[in-house]
Parts: sequence; C-alpha cells; structure tokens
Amino acid sequence: RCNLTGWWENELGSRMHVSEVDTEGNFSGVYYTAVSSAQKPIEPCPLVGSQHLDEDGQCTFGFTVNWKKFSDSTAVFVGQCFAAEGQEEVLQSSWLLREKVDSLPSDWKATR
Amino acid sequence: RCNLTGWWENELGSRMHVSEVDTEGNFSGVYYTAVSSAQKPIEPCPLVGSQHLDEDGQCTFGFTVNWKKFSDSTAVFVGQCFAAEGQEEVLQSSWLLREKVDSLPSDWKATR
Amino acid sequence: RCNLTGWWENELGSRMHVSEVDTEGNFSGVYYTAVSSAQKPIEPCPLVGSQHLDEDGQCTFGFTVNWKKFSDSTAVFVGQCFAAEGQEEVLQSSWLLREKVDSLPSDWKATR
Amino acid sequence: RCNLTGWWENELGSRMHVSEVDTEGNFSGVYYTAVSSAQKPIEPCPLVGSQHLDEDGQCTFGFTVNWKKFSDSTAVFVGQCFAAEGQEEVLQSSWLLREKVDSLPSDWKATR
Repeated sequence: RCNLTGWWENELGSRMHVSEVDTEGNFSGVYYTAVSSAQKPIEPCPLVGSQHLDEDGQCTFGFTVNWKKFSDSTAVFVGQCFAAEGQEEVLQSSWLLREKVDSLPSDWKATR
Repeated sequence: RCNLTGWWENELGSRMHVSEVDTEGNFSGVYYTAVSSAQKPIEPCPLVGSQHLDEDGQCTFGFTVNWKKFSDSTAVFVGQCFAAEGQEEVLQSSWLLREKVDSLPSDWKATR
Repeated sequence: RCNLTGWWENELGSRMHVSEVDTEGNFSGVYYTAVSSAQKPIEPCPLVGSQHLDEDGQCTFGFTVNWKKFSDSTAVFVGQCFAAEGQEEVLQSSWLLREKVDSLPSDWKATR
Repeated sequence: RCNLTGWWENELGSRMHVSEVDTEGNFSGVYYTAVSSAQKPIEPCPLVGSQHLDEDGQCTFGFTVNWKKFSDSTAVFVGQCFAAEGQEEVLQSSWLLREKVDSLPSDWKATR
C-alpha cells in the first residue's frame, strides 16, 4: 500500500507517471505539467525520487523534476501518501521551483 | 563545470557525497546530516537527484534524501551551482522537510 | 472591492475577523485558529496587517498573527484577493509559522 | 531586550527602521529594500507587525511590508530575535513575497 507506482493527477491538472519502485524505495518517472512559467512550450520531463516503504500506508516521499526539455529550472516535491481502508490513496505534497539566475546577487528571488 | 560529483558541506556542518552524474544528469549519493529533529541517533542516508548539464557552470539541481535509517521523514533540496572562473564552486539551495503525520487533518504542520 | 473587512474562513475551519481597513491599507483583527501545534488550549489571537487598495478587486495583502495567548510562536500570511463580478470574494494565501527555539543552532527547524 | 525598535540591516543590504513597539507588541516602520523584482525604481515602503515581549530576549516576531510605492506585491517576514549577554542582537527570519497575478489559475506561481 502506498506504493507510488502508477498515474497521479493534481488539482492543477498536472499528471505524473511513476515507474516501478525498487527495493530501496527509489523510483523514476515522467511529469506532465499543466502549468509553466517558462517561455518554451511544455514537454513531459523526467523525475527521480525516493519513498519510504512503510507497512501502514502512510509513507513520506520526495522527488525531483528536471525541466530540461523546455527550461533551465528544477522542481522538488515532498509529501506523504494517505491510504485508508477501502478508499483511494491521496498524496499531499509541497514543492519548490528553482529558476536559473545569472549570478549570486539574484539568488534571493530564484525559488518559489 | 558544476558537475555535482564529490563532497559538499553546508554552513550547519552537514555534508554530502555525490557519486557519478550520468549522461541524463541523474545522480545518487549519501547525506551526512549534522542536525536532526528525530529521536533516534543520526545515520548517513541515501539521496537521489538530478541536475542540468549546462555548459555555463550555472546549473540548477534537485535531490531527495530518504531519512529511513533513523526516521520516517523525507527531505528535498533544490538549488543552483555557481562556478566562477578561478573560484571554488558554490551551491545555493533551499529545502523542505516532510515529517510523517498520522492523518490528513495533521497535514498542515507536516512540512518545514 | 476586496476590502478585507469582515469574516473569513479557510478550509481547515480557522476563521478570522478583520476590522476596518484604514486609508493606508492597514488593518487589525482577531484570528480563531482551528489547528495548533502548541500544548496550551487554543485562544483567539490578535492580528495586524496591510493590504493594497487596488480598484480591480485583485489586491495582495499580508498579516501577522501573534499567538501570545497560548504560545511563543508567530505566524505570517501573504496572499491575494480574487473578486469576480457577481461571485464571492476568494482569498488565496500562503503562510509561515515561526516557533521559538532556544538557541541559534536550532534555528534551521524553527519555521514551517 | 529584543525590542525591535531601531535600525536593522540584512545580508543583502536591505535595511528597516522599526518605530516604537507598543504594550501589545505592535509596531510600524519603514523598509528600505536593496533588491526588487519590480519594474519601477525602489522606494522605501511601510511595514506593520507584531512581536512577543518575552523577558528572555528570544522573542518571535512577524511583519508585513506593503510595496505599494512601486509594485502591487506584498511581503511577510517571520523570525526570532536572539540576544546574548554582552553581544549584539541578531534577527533570524524567513520571508514570502506575493506578487499580484491576474487570475486564479496563475495562483500557483504567485509566491516566492
């Protein structure tokens, strides 16, 4: 329970597909974002991450999306799976998006 | 330049070792945290992540640390490498730490 | 439009009452939180803040809640009002909660 | 100790002046930011906030800066004062910056 393998969709319409989770909890996948602050058209981008393998269906997880297909930015997501008996699993997560800035003095505004 | 492979240390005294970065920008490594909010003693924990492979030495990156060796939590870091001619590379990053909570109503306080 | 004066409720069941907004955009009020990570019982706490006075019903705002009635912590909220013709105004906001820590080395974990 | 009244400067070169703190812990002041993501030239902007009045010199505080003099955005800061015997007081804080977006679907990217 709370294996992340499969398709997930969030309230913005972004979707992700997580491939098999290995015995260490590591996984890879593809993120299909519905929103973007980049100039170029959106394309699916690769993700890599890791999850706990708790028996109680409450695992925490995290993953990185490398937006290299259309931008110089990177996003990270961290969250928890909530799996209740007889109900669909729900993921709750928070994210940070790092945009490339040209020098250290602009670092303060690089993350949202 | 700005290949993340090698040892890094932050201002809190935490260190990480990043193994070889592959041609996709993916990497794995080990995080040796100096600080913890967990009960159990700290142990080194595995990390996985991804970086851009920019030629200009300004790549953004992200990674996930799975704290499974001593806690149920997960952290994600996102940042950028700054490599100036003839100077040491500097990483600037932000992070989120997700602690496991026992139910959805406690979700609001799970992330710091 | 998008004057913050009045009662607001969020999805966690927390409510706030904002008193009159002055001509500078400053306001005060009371926050009735539904959730807490403190030991003592919850009590209503004072808030002070400021909003833009845009004509287009899209103002941004921010406010501070001083949780002194039952804890040593402080929260800040920042957000934007969305007022569409013939629809109820909606506030979208993000927050940070600062808990008191006993020394600088614990600063890293003080904010969620 | 740890009364916020007076001048403060951060590592980016931004400065703020906090006027008298009243018996409730409320204060107002002026923020002179050194950095901006707005188009118009920077101007000093008003702030309002609140602090705890702890005897131990470790108070938490929060405040809102209304950037109305040159932008439609609002920032909030939350932090803690650390006052050690015979040493200068240090403020540690985190912030969120809300930029005005034109509609709810853009809300996801409004805060950094």
